[in-house]
Amino acid sequence: MGNILIRDTLLVTVDELRPGYFFGDILVQGDKIARISEHPEKIDFKTAGLVIDGKNLLVMPGLVNTHGHAAMTLFRSYADDLPLFEWLEEKIWPIEKHLTADDIYWGSMLAICEMLKGGTTTFKDMYFFMDQVAEAAAVSGIRAFLSRGMIGIGDSAATSLKETEQFIQNWHGAEGGRINVTLGPHAPYTCPPPYLEKVMNLATKSGRSLQIHLSETKREVEESIAQHGVSPIELVYRLGLFDHKVTAAHCVHVSERDIEMIAEKQVGVAHNPGSNLKLGSGVAPVAQMLAKGIKVGIGTDGASSNNNLDMFEELRLASLLAKGLATDPTLVDAKTALRMATVTGAEALFLEDCGSLKEGWKADLVGLRLDVPHMTPMHDPTAQVVYAASAADVDLVLVDGRLVLEKGELKTIDEAKVRAEAARCAARLVGVVAEKEGK
Amino acid sequence: MGNILIRDTLLVTVDELRPGYFFGDILVQGDKIARISEHPEKIDFKTAGLVIDGKNLLVMPGLVNTHGHAAMTLFRSYADDLPLFEWLEEKIWPIEKHLTADDIYWGSMLAICEMLKGGTTTFKDMYFFMDQVAEAAAVSGIRAFLSRGMIGIGDSAATSLKETEQFIQNWHGAEGGRINVTLGPHAPYTCPPPYLEKVMNLATKSGRSLQIHLSETKREVEESIAQHGVSPIELVYRLGLFDHKVTAAHCVHVSERDIEMIAEKQVGVAHNPGSNLKLGSGVAPVAQMLAKGIKVGIGTDGASSNNNLDMFEELRLASLLAKGLATDPTLVDAKTALRMATVTGAEALFLEDCGSLKEGWKADLVGLRLDVPHMTPMHDPTAQVVYAASAADVDLVLVDGRLVLEKGELKTIDEAKVRAEAARCAARLVGVVAEKEGK
Repeated sequence: MGNILIRDTLLVTVDELRPGYFFGDILVQGDKIARISEHPEKIDFKTAGLVIDGKNLLVMPGLVNTHGHAAMTLFRSYADDLPLFEWLEEKIWPIEKHLTADDIYWGSMLAICEMLKGGTTTFKDMYFFMDQVAEAAAVSGIRAFLSRGMIGIGDSAATSLKETEQFIQNWHGAEGGRINVTLGPHAPYTCPPPYLEKVMNLATKSGRSLQIHLSETKREVEESIAQHGVSPIELVYRLGLFDHKVTAAHCVHVSERDIEMIAEKQVGVAHNPGSNLKLGSGVAPVAQMLAKGIKVGIGTDGASSNNNLDMFEELRLASLLAKGLATDPTLVDAKTALRMATVTGAEALFLEDCGSLKEGWKADLVGLRLDVPHMTPMHDPTAQVVYAASAADVDLVLVDGRLVLEKGELKTIDEAKVRAEAARCAARLVGVVAEKEGK
Repeated sequence: MGNILIRDTLLVTVDELRPGYFFGDILVQGDKIARISEHPEKIDFKTAGLVIDGKNLLVMPGLVNTHGHAAMTLFRSYADDLPLFEWLEEKIWPIEKHLTADDIYWGSMLAICEMLKGGTTTFKDMYFFMDQVAEAAAVSGIRAFLSRGMIGIGDSAATSLKETEQFIQNWHGAEGGRINVTLGPHAPYTCPPPYLEKVMNLATKSGRSLQIHLSETKREVEESIAQHGVSPIELVYRLGLFDHKVTAAHCVHVSERDIEMIAEKQVGVAHNPGSNLKLGSGVAPVAQMLAKGIKVGIGTDGASSNNNLDMFEELRLASLLAKGLATDPTLVDAKTALRMATVTGAEALFLEDCGSLKEGWKADLVGLRLDVPHMTPMHDPTAQVVYAASAADVDLVLVDGRLVLEKGELKTIDEAKVRAEAARCAARLVGVVAEKEGK
């Protein structure tokens, strides 16, 4: 992890204090961006241990995937085009209950391969067997925010709280702070108020932030109103959940009042446009939330409901949906969409010093190849990234100053082995379900 | 163009008479698919001049891009996030008027590079300097349906009719039928009824099919009703346009009555979900049109309003939008979306014997790499193609039995030269606009 200099490159810094793009050099020292120069000013290449020729690259901040369930890659294209509850009850839950720690490790590794190759440098995750997810993140070099998902009803309620406490001790701050643990109460409809109180106590005690699914479906909102008299968001607002640092996933069916509460409490929002469309949940009112100053990041959700972890697809979708549904092509412009997928996403996770290319900030960055037809010509690099680029254009990735992808090849992971192991786990699970569940 | 055998591959034939997928071999002879075998039955490899190992591929029909303006790749990311008429009047028209034949050739070539590399084997185009587009299609090996766009008001009205007649003579049926000419009256709002009569006369005389933009924006429909008392679709229906073979692009703002007229007259529809969202036009009621038996294909539209020509993105969007906006995840399922992008798209262009892998049909096919994280594991190949695959997975392309892409590299085009020439043309155009238009 000596110094790395990327020379003569097209820089899209996503830093408000700089021009939208310029040609320059960028020097990484340790885990930080040490210097950025704008040509004709150049950085002396002798200062660097490794010099990368950036002539054919567009260098930008790494993408921040604010919501997902990594190991669900094992269920990619396993169940599609089904009504939500049939999908869950008939397909996902029956197979999910047979997951082992080994499955979670390889499924998460597969997700991380896909994310790093597609330019994602930070991901937030909620699932179980989280030690394996942390291990995969540690080995691969990706930045991670990990939650042991907690369901407050049924057998696992107490144990998952305990596991979360243990998980914080085991992993929070590991790998020089690259691995972060957050609390993951699943949703208000699976975590009744008394349980959320316990979660909040642990949040206070541990000082950790939280993530929770909120108002993903219309049915969930209707049931909350029937049961509690208020929306899921108002319910947790009144409980004081938002007095902690919270990232709320989905927020599809939100009222103006809900939006005001989210804005007031500076709750981060993880917008998952592909998953919300595919499961028939709807479309979150992103433009309205952004207009209130809410930090809305982008997420892929799990690969069982998406079915890939391509953040370029998601950030484009966030922009296009906002424009198309409001019949206003000025909404969520390229600059806004790119910020959502980078620095705003980092803010939604309460991650500071990350998501823009700035001196002193974390060296999480990606380089996109420019020698492909769809990146030609180059009138506006920001619009090109948002409206034309593909995950496959990612050629170079640094996380925390470490080179994890070079010339499109993963440096930290044996990708072929990961694909083979994940395929083995998926096949085993399908076999077990066929045998035990008669499906 | 000897015989080509692809062996030991995963076949997704998009043929209703076969299983959704199976392992087998496919033999191409001349421009046709000669034989498909399902393992354990194998095709003798000695019958083939070229044997391709398909073990790592998913082989499926080539994608049919039913609507676009290829040379507008020169304006990719040139003007974004603007209100529709500002975009057109302030940005696109001022630069478009400086286009030369040379620009059109290289812009179209760039589009064809991108399309072939992304698995598109047929494209439909409407623009001008069409001899250059035809030349680019001829050289590259792609299948093309080309229209000289006709505007019935202003100076070019008569000349574009005449150019169309000449274009038919020059190019229709060229390259063994791979190049097709169709008539391209732009839209009812730019082609008044007396002009459309002339176009229909030429259609009758030449026996050619037509393509036209219909009901793309709400404003267009409102103005038609104000001016003619009926929607654009009813207007052309009454004029008898639909008594010819017509492919209608967009059809976003269509009434139930419009849909009935389209269905009755077996008009093909080109659905352009990305462009319609990005320009703030809205979302076409695809599920409703499909339910009436309408042949709805997929199109990318021009790269100035999209901003790439990635058909995988568009076919996925077609499915996701239908599900998300109706909050019904069963709508436009994977099989339907894949058909729209292949055989239904071909039908929407009145192209027979193309769009499925069938013995005796055109050998237009693509192979997707399977050794990538996002294509792992493989529970359902059709869902994988629709919900997870990327244009960058395309490794092999045959059009009309000719190998045009192998191991991801174009065989018929010097791609680096095309990118350089297109970049040169785009830079020249921007310079001319800056000088002549003071922009």
